Amino acid sequence: MAVGKETFGVMHPVKGFRLGTAQAHVKKPNRRDLVLMEAAGGSSIAGTFTKNAFCAAPVTLCKGNLQALSGYSENPILLITNTGYANAGTGEKGLTNAKAVCSALAEQTGSVQSNVFPFSTGVIGEPLPVERIVKGLPDCIASLSEQGWDDAAHGIMTTDTRPKGVSVQLELAGSTVTISGISKGAGMIKPNMATMLGYVATDAKVAPELLQRLASEATQASFNSITVDSDTSTNDSCMLVATGQSGAEITEQNADVFAQFKAALMDVFLQLAHAIVRDGEGATKFVAVEVGGALSVDEAREVAYTIAHSPLVKTALFASDPNWGRILAAVGRAPIDNLDVTGVSVALNGVMIAEQGAVASSYTEAAGAAEMQKEEITIQVKLGRGDASATIWTTDFSYDYVKINADYRS
Amino acid sequence: MAVGKETFGVMHPVKGFRLGTAQAHVKKPNRRDLVLMEAAGGSSIAGTFTKNAFCAAPVTLCKGNLQALSGYSENPILLITNTGYANAGTGEKGLTNAKAVCSALAEQTGSVQSNVFPFSTGVIGEPLPVERIVKGLPDCIASLSEQGWDDAAHGIMTTDTRPKGVSVQLELAGSTVTISGISKGAGMIKPNMATMLGYVATDAKVAPELLQRLASEATQASFNSITVDSDTSTNDSCMLVATGQSGAEITEQNADVFAQFKAALMDVFLQLAHAIVRDGEGATKFVAVEVGGALSVDEAREVAYTIAHSPLVKTALFASDPNWGRILAAVGRAPIDNLDVTGVSVALNGVMIAEQGAVASSYTEAAGAAEMQKEEITIQVKLGRGDASATIWTTDFSYDYVKINADYRS
Repeated sequence: MAVGKETFGVMHPVKGFRLGTAQAHVKKPNRRDLVLMEAAGGSSIAGTFTKNAFCAAPVTLCKGNLQALSGYSENPILLITNTGYANAGTGEKGLTNAKAVCSALAEQTGSVQSNVFPFSTGVIGEPLPVERIVKGLPDCIASLSEQGWDDAAHGIMTTDTRPKGVSVQLELAGSTVTISGISKGAGMIKPNMATMLGYVATDAKVAPELLQRLASEATQASFNSITVDSDTSTNDSCMLVATGQSGAEITEQNADVFAQFKAALMDVFLQLAHAIVRDGEGATKFVAVEVGGALSVDEAREVAYTIAHSPLVKTALFASDPNWGRILAAVGRAPIDNLDVTGVSVALNGVMIAEQGAVASSYTEAAGAAEMQKEEITIQVKLGRGDASATIWTTDFSYDYVKINADYRS
Repeated sequence: MAVGKETFGVMHPVKGFRLGTAQAHVKKPNRRDLVLMEAAGGSSIAGTFTKNAFCAAPVTLCKGNLQALSGYSENPILLITNTGYANAGTGEKGLTNAKAVCSALAEQTGSVQSNVFPFSTGVIGEPLPVERIVKGLPDCIASLSEQGWDDAAHGIMTTDTRPKGVSVQLELAGSTVTISGISKGAGMIKPNMATMLGYVATDAKVAPELLQRLASEATQASFNSITVDSDTSTNDSCMLVATGQSGAEITEQNADVFAQFKAALMDVFLQLAHAIVRDGEGATKFVAVEVGGALSVDEAREVAYTIAHSPLVKTALFASDPNWGRILAAVGRAPIDNLDVTGVSVALNGVMIAEQGAVASSYTEAAGAAEMQKEEITIQVKLGRGDASATIWTTDFSYDYVKINADYRS
């Protein structure tokens, strides 16, 4: 089950970026579960990663590689992703296993380990089946193609019910620039970041330092602003690659081109993040929580997350019950100081339900119920104490969420 | 559904403390939904209340009364509790309505408003049906009795599946001292405090200032250390009354008697708090999360709450799945600085599952699964960075939790 129609559209190839997949039987037979991506020599690379202290072995290796390369390589960069096993909570053995996969791939492609970035997603704590993954590498290599986006989007899925991909093209400085990206994730989705993997590639030319800043900013406004179940994964990684093969160069000095490119990039990230929420485990609603009138963006985010994480708000959303008292209660327990509730107002899709801290005089249960029936709901909260605002996207909490997560390992 | 057998036992009367109930049809017909308690003149009274900024109108009035009385009254103190409506998020009208109930009760009993403490629990945001409640007061008054504990325990229930009461007697300084208490609450249960009401009475004599300190300390270790769903209610209140009619006086100077009394009081609070968790909405497990080796008690509580609130940990508990990776992931995302995961160990009911940040060499899936099957589970986490510890009690997350909270208002 997912909210809204599938948005996976035409994926435009990105010059210099190839993708290959294999059925490696990593955990289950007969499914694409191993995905290789290759950025041609001369590419810049940037990344953002989970802040979970128990970060997975592949995350540790990726961070090291990024540093070793200083975000740029004259030689091809390889990204290898397996599903089935997260290779997290696996200690030293986990690092050894991840390195074994990278080493085998480097050998088979004539590359070096610092150019091989590993990614894993799946069950935490169980050892990575290195042998099965290594056996799948030749099929991945053989199928590398700039047309490989669709297969790759399927290959990185776990509890996802549908592939997630966004692709845009724009004319910049006389060249056609493509930005294409795929993501995965449906549960353990929470700030900083989600159980999510995201890969975005562009054929624009972007210097490593600028690319990293763009990646960080786009991640904060997208993948770090969504939550399904408040659990932050050990494996979250989002990579941004720029091959430079379109001929268009992006610099801050060329302000107009920069602004257009950045807007398109932010949009790709945001759409990929929204796709994860729409496919949230058991989701029946797509919910934006907009908090305004805060003293700071952090404060607005705290309040929005408190609402978005409240099991009582989420079950009311599932039931299409305009139980706005639960929203007020969540606002009231958010970790902010000296909230004057008489300044607080709450609206649902623009229908005012509470103002000055109590039910709005214009509110009717019928009007609230009509909005709660919808698949797409915006909860608008105004705190009345400042000018800062923030939006967090989330889902409801359904029987299916419990079912999916109670059954996941079986 | 609730975990463990019903613990409601013999409730010893407390001299000078009477309880009466009525069927006032506050929200639904044919159930006890209005409860009056009366502490005889000469009683001390103390209380702890929700920290939710949207605290309900009755909470505001109770706090005012407590201050006005300075915790002691020569005249009887009345506590009136209705279920059905929380009278929260109701603004000025809510205060007016709560006062109207208190005023009517004061008039019918020859009391004054500052001696009448109101309590409400139920749906947030809808107006209190003052007329129906006032009509029920005469039955409450007529049924006042020191034997009224059982009826009162039933009368304050909402989504509770069973009454919650604890009563102990002890010999102190030649007198028999009784401590009896009842509580309610099953959802919106989270630190500071729960959607819970607690009333504990003793016939010991305790000075107001000392009584308030004892109430605060006992609340912190009990009602403020439980969580069902991470939602803090607008109405939480816990009252502690000492009538003094047993003849035994409790002072800190008499250290031995004080220690015995305090231990018994703490135990009553803790048992009442545990009863709420055992009856948590949809609960099938009773879970203690013990975190040790922390730098501070606050840090230990943060980690314990992060585990106890994790939907993924809670659904794994429901599924009896020893998915310990989810516990590690929760520890890793807890808001504490510079956690060295190689110092972290996790055990389930004493069975070591992770040590040095990875799966324990002695661990077997069969051993983990055997413990997860049990109704009572202790998750023991050691952070390896200090000497502080804390325990938080919680439940699992089941289909029934979603069902109860998606259907609550209908």
